[in-house]
Amino acid sequence: MDGSIARSSEDRLIARYFAPLAGPAGLALKDDAALITPPLGCDLVVTVDTVVASVHFFADDPADAVAEKALGVNLSDIAAKGAKPLGFVMALSLPDDWREEWLAKFAEGLGKAAEKGACPLLGGDTTRSAGPLSISITVFGSVPSGTMVRRTTAKPGDLIAVSGTIGDAALGLKIRSAPEREWAGGLSETDYAHLLGRYLRPQPRLILADVLRKHASAAMDVSDGLIGDCAKLLHASNVTGRLQIENVPLSPAAHVAIGFNPGLLADAVTGGDDYEILLTLPPERLDDIVKDARAAGCAITVIGEVMAGDQPLTVTLRGERFLTRAGSFSHF
Amino acid sequence: MDGSIARSSEDRLIARYFAPLAGPAGLALKDDAALITPPLGCDLVVTVDTVVASVHFFADDPADAVAEKALGVNLSDIAAKGAKPLGFVMALSLPDDWREEWLAKFAEGLGKAAEKGACPLLGGDTTRSAGPLSISITVFGSVPSGTMVRRTTAKPGDLIAVSGTIGDAALGLKIRSAPEREWAGGLSETDYAHLLGRYLRPQPRLILADVLRKHASAAMDVSDGLIGDCAKLLHASNVTGRLQIENVPLSPAAHVAIGFNPGLLADAVTGGDDYEILLTLPPERLDDIVKDARAAGCAITVIGEVMAGDQPLTVTLRGERFLTRAGSFSHF
Repeated sequence: MDGSIARSSEDRLIARYFAPLAGPAGLALKDDAALITPPLGCDLVVTVDTVVASVHFFADDPADAVAEKALGVNLSDIAAKGAKPLGFVMALSLPDDWREEWLAKFAEGLGKAAEKGACPLLGGDTTRSAGPLSISITVFGSVPSGTMVRRTTAKPGDLIAVSGTIGDAALGLKIRSAPEREWAGGLSETDYAHLLGRYLRPQPRLILADVLRKHASAAMDVSDGLIGDCAKLLHASNVTGRLQIENVPLSPAAHVAIGFNPGLLADAVTGGDDYEILLTLPPERLDDIVKDARAAGCAITVIGEVMAGDQPLTVTLRGERFLTRAGSFSHF
Repeated sequence: MDGSIARSSEDRLIARYFAPLAGPAGLALKDDAALITPPLGCDLVVTVDTVVASVHFFADDPADAVAEKALGVNLSDIAAKGAKPLGFVMALSLPDDWREEWLAKFAEGLGKAAEKGACPLLGGDTTRSAGPLSISITVFGSVPSGTMVRRTTAKPGDLIAVSGTIGDAALGLKIRSAPEREWAGGLSETDYAHLLGRYLRPQPRLILADVLRKHASAAMDVSDGLIGDCAKLLHASNVTGRLQIENVPLSPAAHVAIGFNPGLLADAVTGGDDYEILLTLPPERLDDIVKDARAAGCAITVIGEVMAGDQPLTVTLRGERFLTRAGSFSHF
């Protein structure tokens, strides 16, 4: 190269694949920083989650599904806090053997997920490493000042409830890991596809944000397993509680699988990747929240109650202690 | 484990090492999300940068220096935009062989850097992977509405200037990579330590934020090499320009090294990790900016000028075209 300087290939990648996804605040990704003008009278809610190949997804998952999951797991946190997405920044770490076709499909999936979530790309950083593909996304959302739904504010006497159905993704992961499992034989093709799909493409419950802000006393998303996440919420609120496993809502597909092999119930309620909302609410709010959630397009089901005390969460199945190997997925 | 659920070890790590660093907006890291109440009448400036072991730092660099660099490279972007830090979130990916002593020292260094930058930890995510240690930090800053200093707004006729001194970190990296280099023999111990230190512990120019907002027409931080970054800024502004390399400010240590081996000048002006500010300004602002920057504790030096046109940046050394192998560090 002589005294003239060409643009680097990193800039070319950004310009080609990611600049088209950028919202106005992303300054077309031509600056070092994104600019957010927060809505008046609002607080900003910020969440960050990383997904890593071979830990959070399979290295051969479709690139667009990887993008959808990387953004979706963060949008799920935003929804659980009662917030509306404003945008996101992404730190993408590509492995040495990355391919441009992969990146093109990833960017396409990311664009679709961003559009669906009304959450534009604002900025990012792309690096390479000797390690696996890794995507850290930070999402910004807004709530009217002082109304973020906390994890720490569950009160004794509150009901514990959950959105949608639990365990589909954990069972989908089992299918994905070993497609020939005997119990999967009892599943119709539709059931099979449903479970696989819920693992591969989590759907953040953004439609519940307003409902949570209106009625919930505390909330978090269920990402590391229902029982463990419930224990976390109660601990953070300095309370305890009990869960009735027989009340946990299951999809028709999960019912079939668990009917075939009852041991899978433990996987369903301790496996990760549900991306449903776990919430607590005063009992007098139950009728309204169920109605409002249904109007938004999602079921809310009561699965337990909050109690005073600092002893561990009690988990029962039809009145008997429910035994599990582990309560929650942990990276350590 | 029976029906009672204990807290996971991930929560324990966060509670022990990172919760003590959290500012009030971090909700003591007990929630899924951080909450920022943006100052009235301000825009939010957001920047994200990842540092990866063996790419951006040496795996055996001191853990506290790694933390300082991971936060510092982001604070440098915030400074270049004329913004004041509000806080940060971190996605930390630990390798399989991570040790708790390392994490303790890392957290200590991160706490010190956060305090020095008045930029508290607001939230984060910790994962493990088979890959190298990787740290993605997203920093939030604020500027009075509409005053963020852009990269895209340099005008023909503006001067090009730079803060501090250039090339120290690139020479420090050379020493770090091969301590016995012949040319390093010409350096005093103080010079040697100065160059190494500028590579290991970048000092973001937060003290220049107000000065930039007041006088600069455009700015960015110098992280990937002066010449390449200057080409980026001009390209983003749809202008061109020329740089006079003989005017690039060098530290006494860099002068000694380059005097010993003139070939190192090219390393100094194309190597990365300066974390100085590259800026443009109308010529009539020169006296004021130099005075204000000096009052803030930092030199500003003119190194070139912006011109109309879209041809590549011209780089000369005492009137002759200055030849370099590559203008800027690129990850691709």
